[in-house]
Amino acid sequence: MDETEVIARLRRIATDPAARGLSDDAALLDRLVLTHDSIAEGVHFLSGDPPASVGWKLVAVNLSDLAAKGAEPAGALLAMALGPDPAWDSEFLTGVEHACESYRLPLIGGDTIALPAGAIRVLGLTAIGRAGERVPDRASGRPGDRLWLVGTLGDAAAGLGQLLRDQRASGPLVDVYRRPVPLLAAGRAMAPHATAMLDVSDGLLLDARRMAEASGCVAEIDLASLPLSGAFVAEVGQDRQARLFAATGGDDYALLAALPPEIDPSTLCLPSGARIAAIGTLRDGQAHVRLVSDGEPVELPERLGFEHSRNHHRDGPAAALADRA
Amino acid sequence: MDETEVIARLRRIATDPAARGLSDDAALLDRLVLTHDSIAEGVHFLSGDPPASVGWKLVAVNLSDLAAKGAEPAGALLAMALGPDPAWDSEFLTGVEHACESYRLPLIGGDTIALPAGAIRVLGLTAIGRAGERVPDRASGRPGDRLWLVGTLGDAAAGLGQLLRDQRASGPLVDVYRRPVPLLAAGRAMAPHATAMLDVSDGLLLDARRMAEASGCVAEIDLASLPLSGAFVAEVGQDRQARLFAATGGDDYALLAALPPEIDPSTLCLPSGARIAAIGTLRDGQAHVRLVSDGEPVELPERLGFEHSRNHHRDGPAAALADRA
Repeated sequence: MDETEVIARLRRIATDPAARGLSDDAALLDRLVLTHDSIAEGVHFLSGDPPASVGWKLVAVNLSDLAAKGAEPAGALLAMALGPDPAWDSEFLTGVEHACESYRLPLIGGDTIALPAGAIRVLGLTAIGRAGERVPDRASGRPGDRLWLVGTLGDAAAGLGQLLRDQRASGPLVDVYRRPVPLLAAGRAMAPHATAMLDVSDGLLLDARRMAEASGCVAEIDLASLPLSGAFVAEVGQDRQARLFAATGGDDYALLAALPPEIDPSTLCLPSGARIAAIGTLRDGQAHVRLVSDGEPVELPERLGFEHSRNHHRDGPAAALADRA
Repeated sequence: MDETEVIARLRRIATDPAARGLSDDAALLDRLVLTHDSIAEGVHFLSGDPPASVGWKLVAVNLSDLAAKGAEPAGALLAMALGPDPAWDSEFLTGVEHACESYRLPLIGGDTIALPAGAIRVLGLTAIGRAGERVPDRASGRPGDRLWLVGTLGDAAAGLGQLLRDQRASGPLVDVYRRPVPLLAAGRAMAPHATAMLDVSDGLLLDARRMAEASGCVAEIDLASLPLSGAFVAEVGQDRQARLFAATGGDDYALLAALPPEIDPSTLCLPSGARIAAIGTLRDGQAHVRLVSDGEPVELPERLGFEHSRNHHRDGPAAALADRA
């Protein structure tokens, strides 16, 4: 079983309505939104990453799932494996604490375990949020909805690329890779109106396909309209190849929302400075995801994003990361 | 930092009322009881354990935390690290599914990640329960309360000992080690009356000391009154040494409850067949835990139970397990 097969099996087990068919990154139980994401050394972070940034990232990636459901942070359970280096663990906790304070996420419980020597670090967090008036899922997008993206694409993947070439690399792209920002306020503003919403964690094209599959339509993405940061353009460029890289890189933690065409997101209470772009449309059909650029069709790349298959990791962390970059 | 220091640090961070000072194995948020326990290969289970029993155990140890709070299972999030062997993962899921069905715990979400080759298996579960009319904590025991234990002690530790001597060992003690039974119905029956309650997971003396410390009194435990199973007595005996082994072994998933002296647990709606024993008393004082046997003081053993310190595991899984056994 690779991850796809495991998830298919889990979907057959998870028949409770709270599971939402596992077609979401979060469950909904008694108006609480619940999500759990783990991160592993060599897969989701680099051994050389500052431990405080690893703690920050663990909290942020879970909060990003709450953001995509429009939920308000209410509590977190930390699953912490103690490593061989007490100073690492201490700095990691500083990062967890910093992120929890920044987003008013109370740490309310968890578990610490000691791992045998040589074990790689695996750290997990369950984030719990209070639901707003609506909790958008992935599955209710409709043909005709416009696709909006809050945030920018490709920065984290470009930062990871810099780190893989030079582990002492620094700068804004490395910062985005190490310290993603969960878009909680934007998520809350969009949730009442979005027919479908998710956070882009594994690559825009892969996550858009997931929304389209769940909603039974086609996501048509306009490559020319993808929002790129100045730092990304300076590092990678903005030609078609650069845009395909941005659309498949992953670790963006941008929000992808389907909004009915009559909704103008400039009328929503988005936080000042939030960057929002119309990047495509949901359409009738079965092809799941389709690329255009200025109205012309563009062939899909072979890899739409980062899927956690066993094969990606068979050769160890370096190969896995190289595969992502 | 060892686990004790990490937990002390986490307590300083976790100031929200829902955290209950982290003096509990579970948090309480909007009438939901939340707990997360992870289990690691070579620490909480043996590499040779049947994968289905590992899946069962992961669910059961989390449900045991809900049992100690008198909560009704409502949902679970599974944090699954894919290992190198798809058949192992599949059987593991069969065990998770079996335990979820047995205790009506809906699987409502989670996360799968792929680990690099050679990584040890770490598997986690967040269990969510609906609170009953009262959710006993660890900290409200009072001098004069009697200490009651539901279940038996030492079986799992004896079963682990058999497996460490012969990895093909089988029988009732091995079964208890591999497939613990969460005492949900007993927990629900006791919760409305218990001033304090917890599940005995790390050893009776250690867990009783935790209750006594949190409650600001002394737990006096009568060694002669500890409930032992026939299988345990046949394997280990019932002399003082055997009883000290049972009181410190861990992995029991029995329930320890402090009840006011006027409560007779035989009048509570315990499930038929539940074994309950009066094993001691909470008393005024600061010594935290004290042992007697038929009224005579008994010296405390050096090790009260299983604490997850880094040192226990520095020499790898075998040493860690040997240390436990």
